[in-house]
Amino acid sequence: MNIGKFTTIICLLAFVAINVVIISSSVADDSQPKVGYGRGGRMSGSSKSARSDEPIQPISINYDYNRAKVELGKKLFFEPRLSKSGWITCNSCHNLSTGGADNLPSSIGHKWFLGPINSPTVLNAKFNLAQFWDGRAKDLKEQAGGPIANPLEMGSNHELAVSVLQSIPEYVQWFSEIYGLEEMYGGEEINIDQVTDAIAAFEETLITPNSRFDLWLKDYDDSISDSEKEGYYLFKEKGCIACHNGVGVGGSSYQKFGMAKPYDKDTHTLGRYNVTKSEKDKYIFKVPLLRNIELTAPYFHDASTWDLSEAVNIMAEYQLGSKLTDDETGKIVEFLRTLTGDQPSVIFPILPPSTSTTPEPNRN
Amino acid sequence: MNIGKFTTIICLLAFVAINVVIISSSVADDSQPKVGYGRGGRMSGSSKSARSDEPIQPISINYDYNRAKVELGKKLFFEPRLSKSGWITCNSCHNLSTGGADNLPSSIGHKWFLGPINSPTVLNAKFNLAQFWDGRAKDLKEQAGGPIANPLEMGSNHELAVSVLQSIPEYVQWFSEIYGLEEMYGGEEINIDQVTDAIAAFEETLITPNSRFDLWLKDYDDSISDSEKEGYYLFKEKGCIACHNGVGVGGSSYQKFGMAKPYDKDTHTLGRYNVTKSEKDKYIFKVPLLRNIELTAPYFHDASTWDLSEAVNIMAEYQLGSKLTDDETGKIVEFLRTLTGDQPSVIFPILPPSTSTTPEPNRN
Repeated sequence: MNIGKFTTIICLLAFVAINVVIISSSVADDSQPKVGYGRGGRMSGSSKSARSDEPIQPISINYDYNRAKVELGKKLFFEPRLSKSGWITCNSCHNLSTGGADNLPSSIGHKWFLGPINSPTVLNAKFNLAQFWDGRAKDLKEQAGGPIANPLEMGSNHELAVSVLQSIPEYVQWFSEIYGLEEMYGGEEINIDQVTDAIAAFEETLITPNSRFDLWLKDYDDSISDSEKEGYYLFKEKGCIACHNGVGVGGSSYQKFGMAKPYDKDTHTLGRYNVTKSEKDKYIFKVPLLRNIELTAPYFHDASTWDLSEAVNIMAEYQLGSKLTDDETGKIVEFLRTLTGDQPSVIFPILPPSTSTTPEPNRN
Repeated sequence: MNIGKFTTIICLLAFVAINVVIISSSVADDSQPKVGYGRGGRMSGSSKSARSDEPIQPISINYDYNRAKVELGKKLFFEPRLSKSGWITCNSCHNLSTGGADNLPSSIGHKWFLGPINSPTVLNAKFNLAQFWDGRAKDLKEQAGGPIANPLEMGSNHELAVSVLQSIPEYVQWFSEIYGLEEMYGGEEINIDQVTDAIAAFEETLITPNSRFDLWLKDYDDSISDSEKEGYYLFKEKGCIACHNGVGVGGSSYQKFGMAKPYDKDTHTLGRYNVTKSEKDKYIFKVPLLRNIELTAPYFHDASTWDLSEAVNIMAEYQLGSKLTDDETGKIVEFLRTLTGDQPSVIFPILPPSTSTTPEPNRN
């Protein structure tokens, strides 16, 4: 073979190989977070955005997770045996297929009981100053223990839930790997603190970055339309922004439902009063997040409307004492729809089987 | 640049590129089915296995799917709005986290109703000669329509379920792409036939290849232990194999529960009689699949035991008229545990939101 032929063959080989590399890396890119590729704007990075002083901040992505703990937490989030019936999971009411909520006026629980209040979304819940509508849990970990033991929800209790996990060798191994081998094999057992800690670790990952609005905040000018932008300006001018701000577009304060005008559609849900027993806290609720709001109808703690436009009008009337024109409402709703981000991509977990010592499910 | 240098550079380039290809394809391989890599046996292929005459055959993997239809079917499988309550999905009773079943004696349905019979697994269900314990549905497609409209299960009806999908533009688009654009935009609407066809297409993919027993069938000798092998020989010798054979290790015939001795633990479930109304079909049921049997307790149509050893003993006594020693039972159970294969890896679907015309969920 002469040098010329050899070079031709090598060139061909290199050409084919390089093409395969290019093709395979462009396929691989699909699994990477898409931060504004091809949108003609600034790449996200450390340089300051022209919009970094806006009262809403974009969701930043954090990969610094304890992956083993997050994986365990995911299993527990989808674990029906944490409920008395062996059928209800965290995901039953905080469905990751449907915006992290159940899209019901109030949740269905053990024995088909009716929950007392609309289930808030688990997506971006880490941005809340506290959990539940009345803020009675200080964080995700404290929240996670609530529904397991609530007779209207999962209907179990912490002792039973833990004993289910303790009866399954795979769980014992995972918990011991994450929370300390010696303590566990030295006689210590799985405890509810570890269970809720792992669930919370998974929930911390349930954020929705890269909404069109976040891209706009990062100077990708074309990511929202003029009328969506007008909606945002109206959202600020009319005063919605006073409560719905920050990374979560809400979740950072408690406010009275009925600030401008007493809210008469639901007068028996007392909100923060249940926690503080202080008269001034009646009808005060944690301001909900507006991220992915188009996915989480019905709206408000009492689910009084399924319609986002109506929800905006109710807020304007009862919180701000103003009446919006149809055009204003429409534009604000358009803006709100730009807050829908990338939904978490979750591989449905495979759970280990029960053993002869696992407490049997009880539907009663 | 002379030819020599050019050739060297090209060679280097080709070397780097080829290595990247090799590395990236070995990474990509992780998502491919692992058929016995590094197990020191024969690679699966077209050459005949020494064990190809065994009465159980391995599950073969088929990639020839209509991927768009399977993806739509997956969404529908996890779609709570196919139920009247907006809360129950196919996955509620055929949970892909837990062996494709709900691990309950009988399923919980709409309004917490108690299902009449133990839910069979959806995994490998395509290997059944018909669906349901009594075989009343001829295939997966026919089966899929049943639970949606069963008042004890999802509690909806076909008209309502279809009208939910029809109200959501994303579903209309997906159905029209898969089932014909012209017909749908020409006035035709989504119909229940398409819905069940798509669900069945997804369910067809829910197979569990690469069990240790299947690898052994493919001549990977070390994939099962001596005592598991003895269990398999006992399974054949004692006669279990007469009904539990083929790819599904069952599912290919109807048999009377109580062949050797009348089954007295449940005499009111009449089985195939409900379909044929023929006296001779009383207590005749479709033989269940034994694939992944360790994951799908409790056992039998009446869930009369949670214990796999006891299930084996009941079968020996009532079907074969024999009594196994503890050692025999133990070994057969060991063999049965080798039938657990790769569980389907499913990315939890993201569902499109309801619209103002979507029928509201109804928990009553």
